[in-house]
Amino acid sequence: KQEVYVSQEEYPLALSHSDDETSPRDKQQKNSKGNGDFCIKNIKQADFGRREIEIAEQEMPALMALRKRAQGEKPLAGAKVVGCTHITAQTAVLMETLSALGAQCRWAACNIYSTQNEVAAALAEGGFSVFAWKGESEDDFWWCIDRCVNVEGWQPNMILDDGGDLTHWIYKKYPNMFKKIKGIVEESVTGVHRLYQLSKAGKLCVPAMNVNDSVTKQKFDNLYCCRESILDGLKRTTDVMFGGKQVVVCGYGEVGKGCCAALKAMGSIVYVTEIDPICALQACMDGFRLVKLNEVIRQVDIVITCTGNKNVVVREYLDRMKNGCIVCNMGHSNTEIDVASLRTPELTWERVRSQVDHVIWPDGKRIVLLAEGRLLNLSCSTVPTFVLSITATTQALALIELYNAPEGRYKQDVYLLPKKMDEYVASLHLPTFDAHLTELTDEQAKYLGLNKNGPFKPNYYRYENISAIHANLFHPNFYIYTNYHLLLYFLFFSLRY
Amino acid sequence: KQEVYVSQEEYPLALSHSDDETSPRDKQQKNSKGNGDFCIKNIKQADFGRREIEIAEQEMPALMALRKRAQGEKPLAGAKVVGCTHITAQTAVLMETLSALGAQCRWAACNIYSTQNEVAAALAEGGFSVFAWKGESEDDFWWCIDRCVNVEGWQPNMILDDGGDLTHWIYKKYPNMFKKIKGIVEESVTGVHRLYQLSKAGKLCVPAMNVNDSVTKQKFDNLYCCRESILDGLKRTTDVMFGGKQVVVCGYGEVGKGCCAALKAMGSIVYVTEIDPICALQACMDGFRLVKLNEVIRQVDIVITCTGNKNVVVREYLDRMKNGCIVCNMGHSNTEIDVASLRTPELTWERVRSQVDHVIWPDGKRIVLLAEGRLLNLSCSTVPTFVLSITATTQALALIELYNAPEGRYKQDVYLLPKKMDEYVASLHLPTFDAHLTELTDEQAKYLGLNKNGPFKPNYYRYENISAIHANLFHPNFYIYTNYHLLLYFLFFSLRY
Amino acid sequence: KQEVYVSQEEYPLALSHSDDETSPRDKQQKNSKGNGDFCIKNIKQADFGRREIEIAEQEMPALMALRKRAQGEKPLAGAKVVGCTHITAQTAVLMETLSALGAQCRWAACNIYSTQNEVAAALAEGGFSVFAWKGESEDDFWWCIDRCVNVEGWQPNMILDDGGDLTHWIYKKYPNMFKKIKGIVEESVTGVHRLYQLSKAGKLCVPAMNVNDSVTKQKFDNLYCCRESILDGLKRTTDVMFGGKQVVVCGYGEVGKGCCAALKAMGSIVYVTEIDPICALQACMDGFRLVKLNEVIRQVDIVITCTGNKNVVVREYLDRMKNGCIVCNMGHSNTEIDVASLRTPELTWERVRSQVDHVIWPDGKRIVLLAEGRLLNLSCSTVPTFVLSITATTQALALIELYNAPEGRYKQDVYLLPKKMDEYVASLHLPTFDAHLTELTDEQAKYLGLNKNGPFKPNYYRYENISAIHANLFHPNFYIYTNYHLLLYFLFFSLRY
Amino acid sequence: KQEVYVSQEEYPLALSHSDDETSPRDKQQKNSKGNGDFCIKNIKQADFGRREIEIAEQEMPALMALRKRAQGEKPLAGAKVVGCTHITAQTAVLMETLSALGAQCRWAACNIYSTQNEVAAALAEGGFSVFAWKGESEDDFWWCIDRCVNVEGWQPNMILDDGGDLTHWIYKKYPNMFKKIKGIVEESVTGVHRLYQLSKAGKLCVPAMNVNDSVTKQKFDNLYCCRESILDGLKRTTDVMFGGKQVVVCGYGEVGKGCCAALKAMGSIVYVTEIDPICALQACMDGFRLVKLNEVIRQVDIVITCTGNKNVVVREYLDRMKNGCIVCNMGHSNTEIDVASLRTPELTWERVRSQVDHVIWPDGKRIVLLAEGRLLNLSCSTVPTFVLSITATTQALALIELYNAPEGRYKQDVYLLPKKMDEYVASLHLPTFDAHLTELTDEQAKYLGLNKNGPFKPNYYRYENISAIHANLFHPNFYIYTNYHLLLYFLFFSLRY
Repeated sequence: KQEVYVSQEEYPLALSHSDDETSPRDKQQKNSKGNGDFCIKNIKQADFGRREIEIAEQEMPALMALRKRAQGEKPLAGAKVVGCTHITAQTAVLMETLSALGAQCRWAACNIYSTQNEVAAALAEGGFSVFAWKGESEDDFWWCIDRCVNVEGWQPNMILDDGGDLTHWIYKKYPNMFKKIKGIVEESVTGVHRLYQLSKAGKLCVPAMNVNDSVTKQKFDNLYCCRESILDGLKRTTDVMFGGKQVVVCGYGEVGKGCCAALKAMGSIVYVTEIDPICALQACMDGFRLVKLNEVIRQVDIVITCTGNKNVVVREYLDRMKNGCIVCNMGHSNTEIDVASLRTPELTWERVRSQVDHVIWPDGKRIVLLAEGRLLNLSCSTVPTFVLSITATTQALALIELYNAPEGRYKQDVYLLPKKMDEYVASLHLPTFDAHLTELTDEQAKYLGLNKNGPFKPNYYRYENISAIHANLFHPNFYIYTNYHLLLYFLFFSLRY
Repeated sequence: KQEVYVSQEEYPLALSHSDDETSPRDKQQKNSKGNGDFCIKNIKQADFGRREIEIAEQEMPALMALRKRAQGEKPLAGAKVVGCTHITAQTAVLMETLSALGAQCRWAACNIYSTQNEVAAALAEGGFSVFAWKGESEDDFWWCIDRCVNVEGWQPNMILDDGGDLTHWIYKKYPNMFKKIKGIVEESVTGVHRLYQLSKAGKLCVPAMNVNDSVTKQKFDNLYCCRESILDGLKRTTDVMFGGKQVVVCGYGEVGKGCCAALKAMGSIVYVTEIDPICALQACMDGFRLVKLNEVIRQVDIVITCTGNKNVVVREYLDRMKNGCIVCNMGHSNTEIDVASLRTPELTWERVRSQVDHVIWPDGKRIVLLAEGRLLNLSCSTVPTFVLSITATTQALALIELYNAPEGRYKQDVYLLPKKMDEYVASLHLPTFDAHLTELTDEQAKYLGLNKNGPFKPNYYRYENISAIHANLFHPNFYIYTNYHLLLYFLFFSLRY
Repeated sequence: KQEVYVSQEEYPLALSHSDDETSPRDKQQKNSKGNGDFCIKNIKQADFGRREIEIAEQEMPALMALRKRAQGEKPLAGAKVVGCTHITAQTAVLMETLSALGAQCRWAACNIYSTQNEVAAALAEGGFSVFAWKGESEDDFWWCIDRCVNVEGWQPNMILDDGGDLTHWIYKKYPNMFKKIKGIVEESVTGVHRLYQLSKAGKLCVPAMNVNDSVTKQKFDNLYCCRESILDGLKRTTDVMFGGKQVVVCGYGEVGKGCCAALKAMGSIVYVTEIDPICALQACMDGFRLVKLNEVIRQVDIVITCTGNKNVVVREYLDRMKNGCIVCNMGHSNTEIDVASLRTPELTWERVRSQVDHVIWPDGKRIVLLAEGRLLNLSCSTVPTFVLSITATTQALALIELYNAPEGRYKQDVYLLPKKMDEYVASLHLPTFDAHLTELTDEQAKYLGLNKNGPFKPNYYRYENISAIHANLFHPNFYIYTNYHLLLYFLFFSLRY
Repeated sequence: KQEVYVSQEEYPLALSHSDDETSPRDKQQKNSKGNGDFCIKNIKQADFGRREIEIAEQEMPALMALRKRAQGEKPLAGAKVVGCTHITAQTAVLMETLSALGAQCRWAACNIYSTQNEVAAALAEGGFSVFAWKGESEDDFWWCIDRCVNVEGWQPNMILDDGGDLTHWIYKKYPNMFKKIKGIVEESVTGVHRLYQLSKAGKLCVPAMNVNDSVTKQKFDNLYCCRESILDGLKRTTDVMFGGKQVVVCGYGEVGKGCCAALKAMGSIVYVTEIDPICALQACMDGFRLVKLNEVIRQVDIVITCTGNKNVVVREYLDRMKNGCIVCNMGHSNTEIDVASLRTPELTWERVRSQVDHVIWPDGKRIVLLAEGRLLNLSCSTVPTFVLSITATTQALALIELYNAPEGRYKQDVYLLPKKMDEYVASLHLPTFDAHLTELTDEQAKYLGLNKNGPFKPNYYRYENISAIHANLFHPNFYIYTNYHLLLYFLFFSLRY
């Protein structure tokens, strides 16, 4: 569910404090082969970046396997991919995989802060046309995107987007380009929402694939990732001991389930709040007291929001928390905790560490607010490469599918990754665990009415993942639920179940 | 997923060894008010049955709450319900609830063995027209059903069925009766399948509600129930100590997940086999080694099947198991273990306890086979009343919905319980846990685009539950999956995810 | 800690309802070889008993291994063992092992109800002089013991006792017999206490070994056994669903820890009461709310005592429990719940199942009292053979040690099983789990100052089990472990256990 | 077990890069009251240090409670404490508590790197005579210690030592000082060992208290602390995802148990190696495969040592690990992994982050070695203040006990903290968890033969912690607990701990 960016704190060594204040746009750089079709901070950092990429390769087994398996047939031969994503070591592994499969790539950053300069350097040195650096201005941002698409003698036929800005730019500036484009692969909730709006408005002129909502990706982004990052995020920021602590987790969707399981395992006493009786009953059966926030707010040591909702923790609750209570958000952007309500004159804010504020009441009570209410796991933890590997593999397979699909399989609409490909992403990650899949016998396959190679669940099975709602956009009964808040639905439901 | 019957072993006291060999059909009995419109074993057992019912009431809080809430308005006033289910204390609580809500009821048993005679007596004493006893012949079975519907001056307008036999009987014998029938509520997989077949054939002439596939019911029947019954079933039959035992669980759907979680918690070392890479990856992330059965079959102490498939454990594997290995099935009927392959002359069978056979190889090796490969949790454990409460409440709400639905809401088709009612079933069970649901503020409800009273998930959300497949029967793209094995799908998928 | 007897309910088939009311003392029976030196219920049951013994052998791998390893050297050659224990299949495996090691045995029962008649028959058929049957009178009891020791031409030189009655009888009737007796092995808390009293009074005239307090036995009797039997005992008696239930566990020793861990894992919400702050802090760190009983007594669904104390649950608390609350004892005999306080006229008792009473208040509230406050796991569950195997192996090794100890190693005192033998019991059970122990290298053994074959903890290490300590308070050899590697010991051991 | 130092990385902001290269010994500084009897880095950092102290106070509730409770009576009035410990915010809370209780303090650092300069400044500003700074030379180190004790008109009467250097210095330089010294409180394994050597040699001339081995402290230092720090240490250094990873933990003592429990809970598959069959059996019953290292070394993703032994992971194993395997040590200093064997020419070392080395084999295989084999949890994680609070409270109570003990209670020997004080440390920490202890009734206390206020375990109970035993081997008061209630003790204690 969450837009991924790798925390800057984690870049281990190297060159983060460059003295060089010249804008990359004002520099002339060439890589060692004399190629200058890129714009990055400093080509000299390429070696550092290469090492980061090599380390990332080790935890992205699926892409490496894909390179091997598909290298012979070059399923992306002829593909000209323009991309706009975070530019990190993991993205580099994806780009080099696409290249190995036959694609040409041009790339910009989807976020002005998230580019790893040394990785960009390594990519440029490797011959990729990359236009990105850490700390772009807004003008830089669009300039970089434009440099990716507006190039003499090269026209993209595939788009890989994260957030929809690249797609938007082409719609706005180069609409004719879509004639040659075979499809769009979109990664983010926001970008997917924009595509559905285009589709509803009848303006989507190529097939698009929503890779955000594949089952595999959703499970890893939410349940598995949050189960670890809640501990990591709290520990790095506060060094709190979990044993014996009383914690209230607001919301018992996938994210909440991950948080609750981890904290319970570490010896915390966990309370849950919920609005949906079905989720609530699950919390009960899993051994958590289901309470209203006001019943426990005075006694808890830690408050964690993961509802997708807004104003879940309001000033009234903050006023009643006990001294030293830690408050953080694992859910949806920064709406869940009403941080604005704490910006009042009688309260003192004290920044005690990066991402950690003490908010001090007149009587001396301190609340420990993490990441100013933004997402804890993105701000104060790291996203394991393995999770990013799931995403990147899904993107690669979506590109292959769209690029190679026979005429007519996909129309000018938004699609989910076919079930079989979702299963394929999962299967490519199994060797990491030395996991051995059982094969159906012919007799069993016949008995179950299944193909031995899958898919093992029907295509619509993915509807378990609620944001897959889009699949039904065309269904006549779909609109019995008038839905003026489609994006909110997305955000809300992707946090639950 | 599983047809529920309460094990006879558990009826604690009372009259199970009746000396009275007269067929109930040959007896004339009247209750204390002189009413004789019933046919049961022995009306004198009514007091025993009443106590059983009272005990069951204590663990069926939702029905009791329903009685209270709906008693004023009598939502089933005028309803004439004919039912065909297991006749147990829990069913009695349901019937008396329906009666309290205004319905008249006539009832037969859906299984020739499962009737609790003393409960039937209590119902007859209470004025219900019950036709059922433990140990009916097949002829008795149909005779009882017929006595429910073929009655002067009374015609049913609602059907509550479990297995489809009652529905089948009316179709066959009294098709005109459907003119007055407002709907069918069906509980079992088999019965639901029959209804879909009728629907596909265009022969379904009233609305039907599939209550088997509500989210709440599915979670309890599978994950929560099996998490406890795997331990209970193994312990009651074998007294095995779980700590340190090596166990292989075949299949990692809801049932498999429940089994694995319970055994891991008790200190067993658990291996998992899977055919679906997505389920497989979940097993890995949950900390289980994913293996092929042949990799571990020599070393494990316990083998548990929960795949929904057939011939998962075949003779070849049984030959290689070590001495004392326990083999049992939690999955689908009795197909998963190839028990037939053990009926060969060189193997000796020894019945060591009820439901426990030692199969002895020529070299003295013994395999401990439980329930002859039938469902362990139904054969050797009990289904907690709380789980039956979920089912019974779902049935009651489905009857209310169908009976009161405005003209045209339901057509001659098979429906799932509306999401909101599914949530209502859950919410009625929350007070048992002293669980307090949070209510959305107006502002939050608006932000999320939800009604404050739910439903909190869109109607199609239930699709997570794969057997909800039927919802898409009307969807044009549905049949891209030609599906000759619909029932198998149901069985198969309801065991997974 | 707990006197073990195998519940009669569990004897699966066979002859439990004998019509034969003749006292065994009045019968003349001979086994198939014409030997009549025994007194049991019915020699014809021998075949049934043999099968029970064979099944038990499969889960007592350590004794079977001992038979093999020690059979060559017959370490008990010449031993004449008189025993007084529960007579069950597991005891039979022990007796036949002692016999295989060279001992002659005569045996009586330590409990008038616990004898498995068919096992006694199998033993008699196998040539053992057994004097025991189910349902002895008190007079029978002492008569049987006397028949074991008061026999022409045979005098015991070893005693294996469980409860101290046999030892007591010999002290009282045949004190001279001790001249030839090399030692006593005592299994029970009560018997051990009697021995210490003898020792304190200077009246103990042979060495005695307290096998109750070996580390291995204690861990299995308490933590591991109770972790499983709490679930089993509750399920068999009440079919309660654990998920979401609120439970209070009184006492957080080994038994309490086992109960809490199991119930938490099954989804219960567990509260703990404690009097000792160190245990209390452990409960907190393990994730349990530490409360006083009166804080939660109104809300809990299940109350479990495991304190070793008396009157932990008194009438006042019982009055305040909610309807349907289950009350049971896992701790010490029947003192923890004040059951006597419930025997008042205004309360109605209703026996609803074996071991299950409903106590009914005037307002209709029912409390579910299990086993009338006696030990749940002995009354309503079974003790796994594997646990009994630990005990029996410990007994066998203690007999071997005492019988073969060089003159002077043991004086007229009470001893604990030497650490090395305790470790040996554990190591004999490892193959069951296919567990592979690591061996120290010479270099590592030297570094740690340990013998490569153990003991790996100093002898006094067993004091972790506090109740054992008293054994050595009087013992001059207490300081025999000279310790040149004190620092290493500190470092080494503080990391272990 | 582990010497605690707070990682420098964690000092959040401020002044860590001082430009001031002047040695503190060459500076003249005075605090705001004109006092100059200290030697620290920079008195101007006092405000920063004060804030750190205030934050620490919030997680050291026991010391704060002690201040309140004991402030009236000033139990340390007249005490002149010389201390030599790590100088951190937590130590400052201890020192200010001692001061509040009436003591005068002079303090040096026990480690040349671990001093928090700003905390030292705050202490100096508060009037404490502190002699310590981060980055002392060895000469500085002894100079600082000497400045603490060698002062005109002030002579210590209590010693609080951590490592024994202060005690050693006084022995060597000012032996006459011991005439006025009432006792030594020693915190570390090393220091305790030195004291026992003195005692054995008959050279210990004052009572000493070993606070390292109190039950409460041991549980927190090992089990509870390591359960959290293994996750934290691995995550901060490698960002590894735990789910599905195969891990081998060498050693199943308290530290190993903590590591195993945490990793299992996070979804890792954990193998255990052990040399002691009793620990091994516990690992089996807790659900871990017990293996020899060579059986799994090729397949595991993470290797963790916690044995207290040496050369557990040798080059041969390192050679066979798979690419990317993480190797770290949670056990004893840096002996467990044979790091020296990796310093060979064919292997390349690459420092990829602080505390993280890649050791690269000629074929490109990389092993990820953490903290160069030193203790992971001290090098790469933080010790929660709550754990330090346990230690500091224990130290304070030991000082009070020794200072106030009546003549003759303690001789020139090494003592463990009395059981009752150990319990008191625990009880002072219970309010943090809002935990409510149950009190014995008079009747219960009598039944158990206990004082209502404890101690609840006999004094020797602490021997469960084996390393503590040596303390009392020489102690005449060992048998002071007369025990009239032996049986009750047995029953009571066998249920607890």
